[in-house]
Amino acid sequence: MRSFASDNNSGVHPQVLAAIASANTGHAVGYGDDPWTLKAQADFRREFGEDSRVFFVFLGTAANVLSLNALTRSFNSVVCARTAHINVDECGAPERMLGCKLFAVPTPDGKLRPEDLLPALNDLGNEHHNQPRVVSITQCTELGTLYTPEEIRALAEAAHGSGMYLHMDGARIGNAACALNLSLRQVSRDCGVDVLSFGGTKNGMMYGEAVVFFKPELAREFRFLRKQGMQLASKMRYIAAQFSAILTGDLWKANAANANAMAQLLARLCAEIPGVTITRKVETNAVFASIPAKAVAALQEQYFFYVWNPLPAEAPEVRWMCSFDTTGEDVRSFAAALSKALE
Amino acid sequence: MRSFASDNNSGVHPQVLAAIASANTGHAVGYGDDPWTLKAQADFRREFGEDSRVFFVFLGTAANVLSLNALTRSFNSVVCARTAHINVDECGAPERMLGCKLFAVPTPDGKLRPEDLLPALNDLGNEHHNQPRVVSITQCTELGTLYTPEEIRALAEAAHGSGMYLHMDGARIGNAACALNLSLRQVSRDCGVDVLSFGGTKNGMMYGEAVVFFKPELAREFRFLRKQGMQLASKMRYIAAQFSAILTGDLWKANAANANAMAQLLARLCAEIPGVTITRKVETNAVFASIPAKAVAALQEQYFFYVWNPLPAEAPEVRWMCSFDTTGEDVRSFAAALSKALE
Amino acid sequence: MRSFASDNNSGVHPQVLAAIASANTGHAVGYGDDPWTLKAQADFRREFGEDSRVFFVFLGTAANVLSLNALTRSFNSVVCARTAHINVDECGAPERMLGCKLFAVPTPDGKLRPEDLLPALNDLGNEHHNQPRVVSITQCTELGTLYTPEEIRALAEAAHGSGMYLHMDGARIGNAACALNLSLRQVSRDCGVDVLSFGGTKNGMMYGEAVVFFKPELAREFRFLRKQGMQLASKMRYIAAQFSAILTGDLWKANAANANAMAQLLARLCAEIPGVTITRKVETNAVFASIPAKAVAALQEQYFFYVWNPLPAEAPEVRWMCSFDTTGEDVRSFAAALSKALE
Amino acid sequence: MRSFASDNNSGVHPQVLAAIASANTGHAVGYGDDPWTLKAQADFRREFGEDSRVFFVFLGTAANVLSLNALTRSFNSVVCARTAHINVDECGAPERMLGCKLFAVPTPDGKLRPEDLLPALNDLGNEHHNQPRVVSITQCTELGTLYTPEEIRALAEAAHGSGMYLHMDGARIGNAACALNLSLRQVSRDCGVDVLSFGGTKNGMMYGEAVVFFKPELAREFRFLRKQGMQLASKMRYIAAQFSAILTGDLWKANAANANAMAQLLARLCAEIPGVTITRKVETNAVFASIPAKAVAALQEQYFFYVWNPLPAEAPEVRWMCSFDTTGEDVRSFAAALSKALE
Repeated sequence: MRSFASDNNSGVHPQVLAAIASANTGHAVGYGDDPWTLKAQADFRREFGEDSRVFFVFLGTAANVLSLNALTRSFNSVVCARTAHINVDECGAPERMLGCKLFAVPTPDGKLRPEDLLPALNDLGNEHHNQPRVVSITQCTELGTLYTPEEIRALAEAAHGSGMYLHMDGARIGNAACALNLSLRQVSRDCGVDVLSFGGTKNGMMYGEAVVFFKPELAREFRFLRKQGMQLASKMRYIAAQFSAILTGDLWKANAANANAMAQLLARLCAEIPGVTITRKVETNAVFASIPAKAVAALQEQYFFYVWNPLPAEAPEVRWMCSFDTTGEDVRSFAAALSKALE
Repeated sequence: MRSFASDNNSGVHPQVLAAIASANTGHAVGYGDDPWTLKAQADFRREFGEDSRVFFVFLGTAANVLSLNALTRSFNSVVCARTAHINVDECGAPERMLGCKLFAVPTPDGKLRPEDLLPALNDLGNEHHNQPRVVSITQCTELGTLYTPEEIRALAEAAHGSGMYLHMDGARIGNAACALNLSLRQVSRDCGVDVLSFGGTKNGMMYGEAVVFFKPELAREFRFLRKQGMQLASKMRYIAAQFSAILTGDLWKANAANANAMAQLLARLCAEIPGVTITRKVETNAVFASIPAKAVAALQEQYFFYVWNPLPAEAPEVRWMCSFDTTGEDVRSFAAALSKALE
Repeated sequence: MRSFASDNNSGVHPQVLAAIASANTGHAVGYGDDPWTLKAQADFRREFGEDSRVFFVFLGTAANVLSLNALTRSFNSVVCARTAHINVDECGAPERMLGCKLFAVPTPDGKLRPEDLLPALNDLGNEHHNQPRVVSITQCTELGTLYTPEEIRALAEAAHGSGMYLHMDGARIGNAACALNLSLRQVSRDCGVDVLSFGGTKNGMMYGEAVVFFKPELAREFRFLRKQGMQLASKMRYIAAQFSAILTGDLWKANAANANAMAQLLARLCAEIPGVTITRKVETNAVFASIPAKAVAALQEQYFFYVWNPLPAEAPEVRWMCSFDTTGEDVRSFAAALSKALE
Repeated sequence: MRSFASDNNSGVHPQVLAAIASANTGHAVGYGDDPWTLKAQADFRREFGEDSRVFFVFLGTAANVLSLNALTRSFNSVVCARTAHINVDECGAPERMLGCKLFAVPTPDGKLRPEDLLPALNDLGNEHHNQPRVVSITQCTELGTLYTPEEIRALAEAAHGSGMYLHMDGARIGNAACALNLSLRQVSRDCGVDVLSFGGTKNGMMYGEAVVFFKPELAREFRFLRKQGMQLASKMRYIAAQFSAILTGDLWKANAANANAMAQLLARLCAEIPGVTITRKVETNAVFASIPAKAVAALQEQYFFYVWNPLPAEAPEVRWMCSFDTTGEDVRSFAAALSKALE
């Protein structure tokens, strides 16, 4: 049975698994000097530009934290939305690893605006306060919402104009690019992003994320940060082969397209159920809904998912995620179960 | 062509790959609450005792650093051999992540003795010096040598007698247990080890290592250290399935046995070549040899391997490692190439 | 001319300076094993209870950070008011030194309430989130407001009931105790505080703060944290002698009483000036006022002080602090200058 | 009675105390923007060159650690002598604060040679190893020995030639300059030192050390490192006034000259006592001697001092330090007591 708890509950796409199997041939030098890694890095450069610098790590938290590590000193701060994954779901890994403070701004929809930078910028030059150095945005956001390219460009300008960098947490960048009908590059580098955490795991991979630098000079010391940050894979070819698989023939886009479409279907079917309110605009593969409290427990007996906001107690807000392999049948069964739980 | 550079240059054992494929079925809850993880943890407890506490991480550096993290505060020190992986091959990850100092002791063979702890113990209670808290040993060592159970027991007694813990870096624990003809438990827990980094990658896995606590109270906060330490895999079932594969039917032992046997063969064949001296006792899967300098470059054209000690310049010491999939044919070809390079 | 910018702009009380001079006699063993330190620690124990554990450090940031260090692991969080000094005025020293996240709660008056702990407590046991471990309050607060003993007791109960500790930043604890007409112990330990940062510098000392533990077991490792935290003074007698001076004959209280009284006078005189609004209740030695923007610049030509809130632009909020040595004459001159600036 | 345990057991020079008292006049803006600090910084620039950048901190550990902080990233290493204070007497503050590894080299006399850098330089560019970035030397060394200007210049060249910086721990730089009959600048900046920890406490000050940068660009972020590193004094004028005092009329030199001369006298008198061997060249204010074990305990009843090396057990090596205020009478009494203890 397929889950709607998270897009990391899904397994591995068959083509990705096949790529892993086909990389399992003989010996290869460790730590990234193998042909698979060289090829995958070239695949990335083809997507993002030849002067991109690409590094593989194991997981998204590390992609985010080490990206920021390359851009900061301990006395800096990172401006992000209060709902950002780096702020609420990484057990303080950014603070511990970087020493930095997160300057977390409340937002209505998980999206930063240029004016959200202003309070942090007041601290510039004042030694009593952390010095703002990076703006970190998530595309698509943790609330399933999307930045338009114009919105990102405005943030990039505001950041760069104050000596700050723009980092993008792209754990679901595929879903974003697909929803906007743009290339991966068009939703990141072309909007002024300096460093991108490129997500693989939520797009049908087994493990592995990439850190992509669009300014080569920012990448100069990254090898050391990655190794000391405990993210240098010895058998790196198996991460690389997966990335090549999802970048080949736009598999990433097919995976994202399905997840996005299923979320639309899920939202449409659930919105028709009395007592259910879709609480946020469904732009990618996340559906947020307010449902009667009694339905939560009943439905969770069959389907594990997260309560996003326990308030109001009588109708909490829940989150449902669709995956690359979610089917229309899955969605219809889920909606039926919800409907039944509400009877 | 198979490499002798490192046992992480090999690929993935077919049974491990099959286990991954068979875990790729439908959705599973993330972060370790899935059936595969529960089963693999049970497999570990069967090997090491029911009150063991088992956690999976991505790689060996993290297994070591996070093990030590559970045992230390920043003002502590960790006593280890100067050649220990944590001291020389992790780009300072222990210092950065723990804040601790490594009290690195020179040894003739990569093995600590109880008397090596004494200088560190002089510092006990003196606030000007790091407080020794853990003894960390590698079994088998980075020099391919073995601790006997008695030797480990003596270290455990010395450590525990001074309020210290004993950590074992078991990146190659399979090779050690196999060489000693003992169970995994007999070479670790039964000798007084408190926490074990259990290696999978060098034993035919794709990625994944385990941290095994033999005193449950030491594990109490480990979940948080692992998450904040950027080592909590979302799709953890794929690490777990690999571990179940190597723990099933003692696949780990078969893998280690082959690597060890090939190292013996390699040492025997090379020792017969004029100009080649085997420099260290071959107890597991590593062979160290002194060969004429001109042979190094010639042989490296065909086979990548590491120069362990560039001195003496005319006959540097090199390291050759055998893997679970090294064949007698591989070894004979390599010895022939070496012989040819020396003509 | 006396400043109203901060109570650390004042100098050293003559009795404190005399105590320093009288400690300058011959040689004394370093790092705290001298008679002056032993005496000052005894002075503290007399105030706070014989089982208190007392350590001297150089400055308030260190007293706070190292107090919290003794109570936390890196994956913990510290709940505090958003306006807390540890959150806004220490350049991220807590994050860097502890690795912890500050869970900063907006408050109307700089004071936490027990219900402010609830959101953090939701995270208990969830490895994706920092684990709340300490509630840190400032007495008196950065806004010059006071916790009543009952309010602190309620916070202590809430904290202890959830396995958390209560830390008090007492940079101005003298001002608080004096304003409440209670002993130092009555406003801290007797209300359930576990660890206190006891401020000296703002009470007429040259430098030096104390960390006072009310549960001896919490202090066990503090010597090492202090040394590694770069706060172990070699010539410690000179900090100790200052503390003995302000604890002798309740000099601390006389100093605080004067500062508090002058703030009352300042508020009264300024409130009478047209265009000036006292914006917060004056409970200790801080006065917050909203004054016409043009008066800010004019007045700052004579007196340096901080703009607390630049908005609204036409009438920003400023902060004025009184010190142990502020005189009625100083206050009247300042009020007159303000009045003149508004003409 | 004067101690020979350490030069920080002495008190404060009367002129320093007088300078403190005379700075105690009215209010002054905090954190270093006061006239005393500006003057002391100018005093330093006069000594070391107008483009020097000068920052005051509380103590020597912080001067060292924060100096290195300005020069390193966490994946770097710092090459130092094994006996360096940063390596053995700061409870691991460098590792904790910097994340770096200390590459500690054994030396016969506490002094590094250019060839000592070579093993660390082997690691350049290898991501598995910390990257060497700073050479840190102590002048005069922890063993009382001196670098000649030529020796320092050779180290600076070696360091700079490999992209490394040269840091000098000058906790006793006055003693060194005086012994070499050179200016403070001649023994540091003019030899190629990049950053200097300038010691005040052991030269008759109460507290306070300076970090002096000789390349302005290295100092750019130091204000933030100092604040976040918990070393920004609010009432900074009192540190500044002390520095002005010892830099005025070369008081620093008079203080150092006395300490050095007394060490010479002490060594001469003790060398004549049967059973006492002076073990190291006495170049500054430290005397190391091997004395019969029984004399240690007997002498320590009157004089506290440190056993430097407990071996050989029958004649351990002890350390005696002379101070700015040690008198010939003190030395003669001590030598007499030693003589008596040996009867």
